[in-house]
Amino acid sequence: MKLGAMQDWPLRLMRLVDHAEREHGGREIVTAWADGSITRTNWREVAANARRMASALAAVGLRKGDRVATLAMNHASHLTAWYGACGMGGVLHTINPRLFAEQLVYIANHAEDRILFYDRAFTPLVNALKDKWNTIEHYVCFEDEFDSFLGTGEPAFQWVEGDERDPCGLCYTSGTTGNPKGVLYEHRSTILHAMAEVAPDVFDLSARSVVLPIVPMFHANAWGVPWAAPLTGCKLVLSADYRPAQMCDLFRDEKVTHSAGVPTIWLGMIEHIEKTGADLGSLKSVTIGGSAAPRAMIKWFRDRGINVGHAWGMTETSPIGSLGAPPAEWDSMSDAEQMDYTARQGRVPFGIEMRIVDDGGVELPRDGVASGRLQVRGPWVVKRYFKEDQDAAANDNWFDTGDVAALHPDGTMQITDRAKDVIKSGGEWISSIELENCAVGCPGVAEAAAIGIPHPKWDERPLLLVVRSDGANVDEASVRSHLARHIAKWWQPDAIEFVNELPHTATGKLSKKTLREQFKDFRFADAEAMVGRD
Amino acid sequence: MKLGAMQDWPLRLMRLVDHAEREHGGREIVTAWADGSITRTNWREVAANARRMASALAAVGLRKGDRVATLAMNHASHLTAWYGACGMGGVLHTINPRLFAEQLVYIANHAEDRILFYDRAFTPLVNALKDKWNTIEHYVCFEDEFDSFLGTGEPAFQWVEGDERDPCGLCYTSGTTGNPKGVLYEHRSTILHAMAEVAPDVFDLSARSVVLPIVPMFHANAWGVPWAAPLTGCKLVLSADYRPAQMCDLFRDEKVTHSAGVPTIWLGMIEHIEKTGADLGSLKSVTIGGSAAPRAMIKWFRDRGINVGHAWGMTETSPIGSLGAPPAEWDSMSDAEQMDYTARQGRVPFGIEMRIVDDGGVELPRDGVASGRLQVRGPWVVKRYFKEDQDAAANDNWFDTGDVAALHPDGTMQITDRAKDVIKSGGEWISSIELENCAVGCPGVAEAAAIGIPHPKWDERPLLLVVRSDGANVDEASVRSHLARHIAKWWQPDAIEFVNELPHTATGKLSKKTLREQFKDFRFADAEAMVGRD
Repeated sequence: MKLGAMQDWPLRLMRLVDHAEREHGGREIVTAWADGSITRTNWREVAANARRMASALAAVGLRKGDRVATLAMNHASHLTAWYGACGMGGVLHTINPRLFAEQLVYIANHAEDRILFYDRAFTPLVNALKDKWNTIEHYVCFEDEFDSFLGTGEPAFQWVEGDERDPCGLCYTSGTTGNPKGVLYEHRSTILHAMAEVAPDVFDLSARSVVLPIVPMFHANAWGVPWAAPLTGCKLVLSADYRPAQMCDLFRDEKVTHSAGVPTIWLGMIEHIEKTGADLGSLKSVTIGGSAAPRAMIKWFRDRGINVGHAWGMTETSPIGSLGAPPAEWDSMSDAEQMDYTARQGRVPFGIEMRIVDDGGVELPRDGVASGRLQVRGPWVVKRYFKEDQDAAANDNWFDTGDVAALHPDGTMQITDRAKDVIKSGGEWISSIELENCAVGCPGVAEAAAIGIPHPKWDERPLLLVVRSDGANVDEASVRSHLARHIAKWWQPDAIEFVNELPHTATGKLSKKTLREQFKDFRFADAEAMVGRD
Repeated sequence: MKLGAMQDWPLRLMRLVDHAEREHGGREIVTAWADGSITRTNWREVAANARRMASALAAVGLRKGDRVATLAMNHASHLTAWYGACGMGGVLHTINPRLFAEQLVYIANHAEDRILFYDRAFTPLVNALKDKWNTIEHYVCFEDEFDSFLGTGEPAFQWVEGDERDPCGLCYTSGTTGNPKGVLYEHRSTILHAMAEVAPDVFDLSARSVVLPIVPMFHANAWGVPWAAPLTGCKLVLSADYRPAQMCDLFRDEKVTHSAGVPTIWLGMIEHIEKTGADLGSLKSVTIGGSAAPRAMIKWFRDRGINVGHAWGMTETSPIGSLGAPPAEWDSMSDAEQMDYTARQGRVPFGIEMRIVDDGGVELPRDGVASGRLQVRGPWVVKRYFKEDQDAAANDNWFDTGDVAALHPDGTMQITDRAKDVIKSGGEWISSIELENCAVGCPGVAEAAAIGIPHPKWDERPLLLVVRSDGANVDEASVRSHLARHIAKWWQPDAIEFVNELPHTATGKLSKKTLREQFKDFRFADAEAMVGRD
């Protein structure tokens, strides 16, 4: 028997909106729509409407644990639907409309979604897939039917209670092979993530902050910002589209202090600003994640007095895994040291543990030199994907991220490659990304790709594919001599091929998968001879 | 069966020190000793020593759940002992050496402490009480025996694991009546409190912060700072004594950015600074709590560009219940509005719910006018005191704080009285504190106390006791006319008595208990007549 106790207070998601309604009820939630119009609501209204929605969901027969899908951009009705779905005890399934049709069919059926809330803009998509979605019973268009759907609900509805380990969200990741996998977020994991996220060394959110996430709500819950906002009472600004001109107006008009997005978004914003002389208003902090932030981008923000938090994460980590808030020594670091620090992918908040391991699973030193498979664990890291019969993190909870990274003595993590792209040469790893970045630094090289080719002695050796810049006639010797100045001798590619173009994925990334397919029969001409030479 | 899951990662306290050791291993922990010397350690050493201590505790026969007591001021060995006690699975019992001897005997016996770690300065106390402490088997003096005790332990000791709801700490509150009651902190409650505490709107702690809590580690765990420090990697500065001159040197030399303490401490510091021209170095944020911060004190800090967070809490709330971080509207508020805001006791972080109720338990409006019994609930609020057989918070978890407060529409809370001191007049409440503060504003009044006296019609009416300033000859008419300008007519005391002195408690507070005893037979001379007059 317990001799005494602190209170039972399950970490249930709806406590976030209860808190915001009570303590920050009038705090604005702004939506900028694709047509340029602006609408405003607040937590008091969102809470009341979420109750109506939860009640309306129950009225059409949805029950605790049922999946409620959304196919929508960022706006306040979408936000209301999130809280309404979870308030009914449902599992919010945010569908990424950019997936291929077959993936959209697969995930809605796999999730067994019972109801879908969608933006009018996605009506053609919905109409095209309706017949193939086997479990969706109700369709609610946000613009046309959401208000009347809410109208059928009771504003006095009581949130469905339950265990803090109950699921509350579902988000699919589209891997490069096989079907998408669903990460089933829990009430507890989401609350702990939100509590960690507002800390000064993560997103640094307070009641005075004005936050504009330029990340879709269907991408790992817009990096958790819509859960962190009610916790702090910050002003939340949502934008249904990301055109740089509109975004700059929004930053200025709404006095945005904090924003977050992928490098591609920021590139577009920076180009627009450089061209038009627009500015970012009151912005003081940007979080950049999703893929590595180029140094020039980090410098651009720093030059304007804007703090850069370089982040790493994935759907499987809710998504914050690490973030590059300034370390203790920041003020005594030189500009170059600060740049180097920020160019890495940050350090873990309390709640995330990180390690790197070699192919045999042996932990490697945190010396900034060793590079290995990045593994993480913590209360907001996936244990088992939805409906899988095996744990994704079976080995003492260590989840293998598929990234290859180095851990530095100062605690920062540096992604060096994707595990499937790394070139394994004689038991050592060559980073394809570093090789490519180095080659692109050679005058006359427009783009480069490095892939591993089987080798009789070294298992794999690098093949470098180079696209020349327009009008350039750079040759192999020039590339080799450039590389020699920047990389270790054993990283030199065993062959360099000049090609007219390289294959890319739909999101503009190099398609290593296609390249490996194209070059699957490639062999180094003098592989045996080279063995002798080494 | 679960369809998917996030990871199991119990919120166990030792994860804090694991995190700090791994991510902020070299971050300094500074101790300023009473003799003026300074010693330095860091999380790597504290973690290693905590393992040794946990192992040594196990070696002398302590087991999970056993109570490990400390009787010590703030220093790094005390900190090590905290983590060592919890790492062994023990319950850290921090004893307040300022308690009366009989209370010290009671609590150590009630806690069934098995081992005591104490400062050499408390040796006379230990020697005097040893015979009366029935359960303490081992005594370890920090200065003389701690190092050798650690020496018997293994630095490779594995923390004792368990449920996150296991107890990890025990702290007794000395109520004004009856025996002290023990609050039994849990691993989970302590972690959630620490996560909430570092947020920008609470203590605002980052890896760059340098924190000096001027609160004893035996007072509600120094307001949780020693748990929050390893979470963020801030530098922790501990001081074994609080003499203002030494403290000012410490602020300057260690570049302290954040501090926390009760008004009495800050009064001493301010006096010293005003007298000597010393300064507070890099200090940018102070948290003031324990009792209400005078407006002049708040202004003093504000005038120096130092942010003031006015906090409220108690041992039963771990202790942070509310803190006055700037609201969304801060920048558009006038200086007077900001002062008024800061003079109240702040707003709740996510995790604390607050309400005020009347004597019948009916919730009162949050209108800034209604005043009622302050009740709180949340994951770091006590449910049941140690070894009690009834819950302290039985009514839907609402814990009655014993304070009387108003809740303002902006979410801030304002303490108006202690519930036992409030004067209940005809169903309405008169704040004894406000009456006293008002009377003290009358020229010639040095000190004042208001207590309720039974009244045939109104249940209670105020009796005001006044101590004149040296040489002053203020009379009843002057006091009444002063009061009339500031308070409602029905708050006017029914009698004013001039006395030579007022009774105080050991900590310098007015002893209302003694006063009520002294005046228990007092009756208003014209009580019946006054009934007619009203």
